[in-house]
Amino acid sequence: MNLIYVLDILGTFAFAISGALVASDKRFDLFGVIIIAFVTAVGGGMLRDVLINAHPINWIGDLNYFWTILIAVVFTFLFKSKIAHLSKTMFLFDTVGIGVFTLLGLEKALSFGLHPIIALIMGMISAVFGGVLRDVLTNKIPLIFEKEIYASACLAGGITYLILNYFGFPENIIFIISASVIVIIRAVAVKFELQLPKIKDDLFTKN
Amino acid sequence: MNLIYVLDILGTFAFAISGALVASDKRFDLFGVIIIAFVTAVGGGMLRDVLINAHPINWIGDLNYFWTILIAVVFTFLFKSKIAHLSKTMFLFDTVGIGVFTLLGLEKALSFGLHPIIALIMGMISAVFGGVLRDVLTNKIPLIFEKEIYASACLAGGITYLILNYFGFPENIIFIISASVIVIIRAVAVKFELQLPKIKDDLFTKN
Amino acid sequence: MNLIYVLDILGTFAFAISGALVASDKRFDLFGVIIIAFVTAVGGGMLRDVLINAHPINWIGDLNYFWTILIAVVFTFLFKSKIAHLSKTMFLFDTVGIGVFTLLGLEKALSFGLHPIIALIMGMISAVFGGVLRDVLTNKIPLIFEKEIYASACLAGGITYLILNYFGFPENIIFIISASVIVIIRAVAVKFELQLPKIKDDLFTKN
Repeated sequence: MNLIYVLDILGTFAFAISGALVASDKRFDLFGVIIIAFVTAVGGGMLRDVLINAHPINWIGDLNYFWTILIAVVFTFLFKSKIAHLSKTMFLFDTVGIGVFTLLGLEKALSFGLHPIIALIMGMISAVFGGVLRDVLTNKIPLIFEKEIYASACLAGGITYLILNYFGFPENIIFIISASVIVIIRAVAVKFELQLPKIKDDLFTKN
Repeated sequence: MNLIYVLDILGTFAFAISGALVASDKRFDLFGVIIIAFVTAVGGGMLRDVLINAHPINWIGDLNYFWTILIAVVFTFLFKSKIAHLSKTMFLFDTVGIGVFTLLGLEKALSFGLHPIIALIMGMISAVFGGVLRDVLTNKIPLIFEKEIYASACLAGGITYLILNYFGFPENIIFIISASVIVIIRAVAVKFELQLPKIKDDLFTKN
Repeated sequence: MNLIYVLDILGTFAFAISGALVASDKRFDLFGVIIIAFVTAVGGGMLRDVLINAHPINWIGDLNYFWTILIAVVFTFLFKSKIAHLSKTMFLFDTVGIGVFTLLGLEKALSFGLHPIIALIMGMISAVFGGVLRDVLTNKIPLIFEKEIYASACLAGGITYLILNYFGFPENIIFIISASVIVIIRAVAVKFELQLPKIKDDLFTKN
């Protein structure tokens, strides 16, 4: 569980940096950058906790999120141009964050006695809606809706979790396997630029 | 009450299709379409339930919303070009949805002991904010703010409900009359392109 | 406490007018204007109350907010062109509103037993997020992220509050001094067009 907490914090750090980068590209001032970093990093879990009535919500109950985000913003402020050269490291952190956020969100919802389908949705909200809120606040169409197999990876990992959990595997094993599913699918999808289908005129019409 | 539940589900179906159509016009991928359909269909009730602290919130407490939305997305995927020819049917479902959402939201707020004015607002939030959230997520100015007498119809229907309720009419009668008020006002307004006034420079200035 | 309540209502009035002005510039209809005025005036406190689980939330628990906003919209409708000449009065109301919203939000969070850092954030959310929601709903990049020292003034006032509170000063004194800090910083910042720094390429790079 300790390792998972460390991964959660690393994921928060990576999400906060991704938010800070978007905000600084938009020429936001320091406060704007902090708010966007904050929303990106904890927005998904915050929405989940409000929806399932889990109070205190994530960042109110644990100040480590706040400090992590603040450090991430300072880090971005200091090393913005260097971070570009760390894109592989950042992608790794980010992907690990997605995996961990999905599974922790799913676990939390299950622990509140919610239906597995709802838990699956909550896992995905945890991983995805930080980025959605970031894009809404910076007045862009959320990236997640257009590209990236991101949400599908979370879904696949979440389903893996539920299946392994159903068959009674030990929690750590479940967590590692399911997180790996998410990380691998996302990495493969990004590498090969896989995308989900879009709705054309309709399925029976030639385009 | 059973009929009302059926109408609620029909309204959810119509709202989900309207969301799916907007999202597919924006070239969102399958996940994006599902999310927008979901938010459009249950976003208003979700916001209401979070604001009045009614947990579990609508779609968490009843999985039928989830399945209805999923079916609506599949339906849109398969028959997108045909739906255009069903615009009258869709408009009917949509308008019925608006009426039912308004009144169910109002009733729920009253059953939580809230002031009738708050209940009226909650009814309108239930009917209107799904579309607002859809527009925010697809980066458009919410339609409701610019055109359509939509919200006024909900308000008139809600006030009708409260008055009839005050005089002790039976619930079913109240529901049918109030819903009819909403449906008729909206249908007439759309047919004759009625609009609410806008704020000009000021009322005492000629334009 | 009575004076503070009056200031809270005055601030709500000023915020509602600012929202109504933005909405009428966007050519929204009457309902759109009311919704934007409403969200601008009570959106920050509403978000705070949802996040800290303080039910009934601000405007549900006290209908005076609703009436104040309605009067503000009517006032804007009638006197739009005159309000332009009242810009100093409006700026004063608005700034007092920011100060009062910050401190009342902070106090409320403290009274819920939350950590001072969280209380500080809640104070800022109370003062700032009404405007953020207004901008999101009117499809603009939130002003707060780009200009205006607004949030910094709230932060400074909030920290002043916490320090004076720590040393046991009487509540009224604390409130007046902290609110003055906010009002003065904002007034000075607007007068001299002070801004927070932005993230350049990075701190060690010449621009």
